[in-house]
Amino acid sequence: MRLAGLIQERISDTLSRHREALAPLGTDALPLLDEALGFLSGGKRFRAQFAVLGYRAARELDTSGEVTEEFERILDAACALEFFHAAALIHDDVIDRSDTRRGRPAVHRLFSAMHQKHNWRGAADHFGLAGAILLGDLLQSWADELMQTACDNTPDRVAARRARAHFNRMRSEVAVGQYLDVLEEQHPEFADHDEQLERSTRVLVYKSAKYSVEAPILIGAALAGASEELETALSSFGLPIGVAFQLRDDQLGVFGDEEITGKPIGDDLIEGKRTVLVTLARENLPNTQRRIFDDLLGTDLDSEQVAILQRTIRESGAVEQVEDMISRNVERATDALIGTSIRPDAAAQLTALAERSARRTF
Amino acid sequence: MRLAGLIQERISDTLSRHREALAPLGTDALPLLDEALGFLSGGKRFRAQFAVLGYRAARELDTSGEVTEEFERILDAACALEFFHAAALIHDDVIDRSDTRRGRPAVHRLFSAMHQKHNWRGAADHFGLAGAILLGDLLQSWADELMQTACDNTPDRVAARRARAHFNRMRSEVAVGQYLDVLEEQHPEFADHDEQLERSTRVLVYKSAKYSVEAPILIGAALAGASEELETALSSFGLPIGVAFQLRDDQLGVFGDEEITGKPIGDDLIEGKRTVLVTLARENLPNTQRRIFDDLLGTDLDSEQVAILQRTIRESGAVEQVEDMISRNVERATDALIGTSIRPDAAAQLTALAERSARRTF
Repeated sequence: MRLAGLIQERISDTLSRHREALAPLGTDALPLLDEALGFLSGGKRFRAQFAVLGYRAARELDTSGEVTEEFERILDAACALEFFHAAALIHDDVIDRSDTRRGRPAVHRLFSAMHQKHNWRGAADHFGLAGAILLGDLLQSWADELMQTACDNTPDRVAARRARAHFNRMRSEVAVGQYLDVLEEQHPEFADHDEQLERSTRVLVYKSAKYSVEAPILIGAALAGASEELETALSSFGLPIGVAFQLRDDQLGVFGDEEITGKPIGDDLIEGKRTVLVTLARENLPNTQRRIFDDLLGTDLDSEQVAILQRTIRESGAVEQVEDMISRNVERATDALIGTSIRPDAAAQLTALAERSARRTF
Repeated sequence: MRLAGLIQERISDTLSRHREALAPLGTDALPLLDEALGFLSGGKRFRAQFAVLGYRAARELDTSGEVTEEFERILDAACALEFFHAAALIHDDVIDRSDTRRGRPAVHRLFSAMHQKHNWRGAADHFGLAGAILLGDLLQSWADELMQTACDNTPDRVAARRARAHFNRMRSEVAVGQYLDVLEEQHPEFADHDEQLERSTRVLVYKSAKYSVEAPILIGAALAGASEELETALSSFGLPIGVAFQLRDDQLGVFGDEEITGKPIGDDLIEGKRTVLVTLARENLPNTQRRIFDDLLGTDLDSEQVAILQRTIRESGAVEQVEDMISRNVERATDALIGTSIRPDAAAQLTALAERSARRTF
């Protein structure tokens, strides 16, 4: 896909510029920049694509032709989202103690391995943690810079400020959503079903649905000068697609193929994530089975135990419930586009991308 | 001091606004915001003051009178620096495993304590780490928003972009400088004296000198539309003051009074920081004494051992050397103001603030 290539090119150019600017700090800092490039060379680029389509929903833009100044602006905003996402994932993997990301060792593991290789002093793990925190911080600030450039180069000042406001809200909400997610895992027990479903849904909405789909679309649309009415329509599309996106993630976190997702099998089960899928499965189980389920969840499961939990969830009917929810959310989103002022070619491509993100296997 | 009061007020207002915006995420998220307010209610506010004086170096501004729109802009930029600094310290304390900051438990310790108090599941330490990483991320994004507001409200677009560029460079350099600092501690041994002094100086310059003094002054000056010539002069003032500021910090890290600094006695010695002070002290020691010194540095010292290292450093003559360096840097900075277009009242106050930051006892 051409867009993916343009995004990757811009990411590499941005990192080269930073590498030059940081040259006075000496070569010892290069591993930070190398890890940044390695990490930013992967990923599904959903956010970048949603941002560009958000833009095109409001304003004609030929993304197959020449890269005009206008095209560059939305590419910068799209890259800002990819930088920010990389930063968030790097910190997230520290917080979730995840060892794998995008089929490679997580960034904190890479820095630990560097420490071990050089036989340095002190704890390799702690050095890994430090490297990951600082690389995440660096990528956050570079995300800001890119967003800044996109906004500065937008002639319509009101549009630029609105785009910026969406970006700001997204950042706050995802950090707080992530905090709520961590908090959820600390509770010794699941809450009552209704309460737990509400909490799990709140985490899903703020940590992922708004962040992965709704916000990128709105940032793109605002930058293109979308009307308030159009933004509302795009919200009504983006939020349910974001919900579907994350519900799919919940399924993949339990049943995903390691080879395709780049994450270990049953990762969410080992981490003990209280996802909507898990919450629904528990509600469907008879009491004795639920107690066994709770005892296993969030422990250091072997592959046999993972298989037991997978089977339990599947047999509980929760998988179908979640599939239904995904379908209903996609439907609701598609309906929201009817009768709006969204440009027709963008509407068709948004629908296609939404389908892809809700049905993906990775 | 009036400025400190205005800064504090603006910080509280900003946090209240965020609290309202985040209300839909529920009350569970409030501890994050409470810790933010607690943490941002302390500190020396040197960066905010340097930013305001940088502004006044280029442009008349009555900071004792009414808070005009113009005054608000530089206050926002000054608060942005305080938010960013808070974020950096919170992450720094995780990285340096510091348990105390500003006379209170470090943020990661506060979140751990909250975990223990509620008797939650899982490791309290890891929850502390997660809370600190996420609060740091949140404050970074709020710093960015404040800087954004300051720039958006600046009618001179070129000035706003230059201020923003200084802010961006500062953020990159401090993260990389911090990485180099951590890296330094991993080396099994000190390098040869010249090499070690070069490395320790590089960390001092990027992690602190530019960040604490030069960048805040330049951000303020750029926002006021300073000429290139004036910025150069302010750099020639700010960098040596920043160096003096950090050399003082090195002294306080070894000899500081716990009651005044809010950090444990001999903190830098326990952490094994390879500061310029420590590097000079080692060079002055006879071989046998240096070996004993190296064996103790960076270990879990008791108060008697701290006292031994303090005495060794004092008797080595390194303290006087560093005091000389501080004086020479302050002198060089003051000389740099002569014959420039810096507004005279700002020059006088910059000199006074520089003296205070180089001679401080906390």
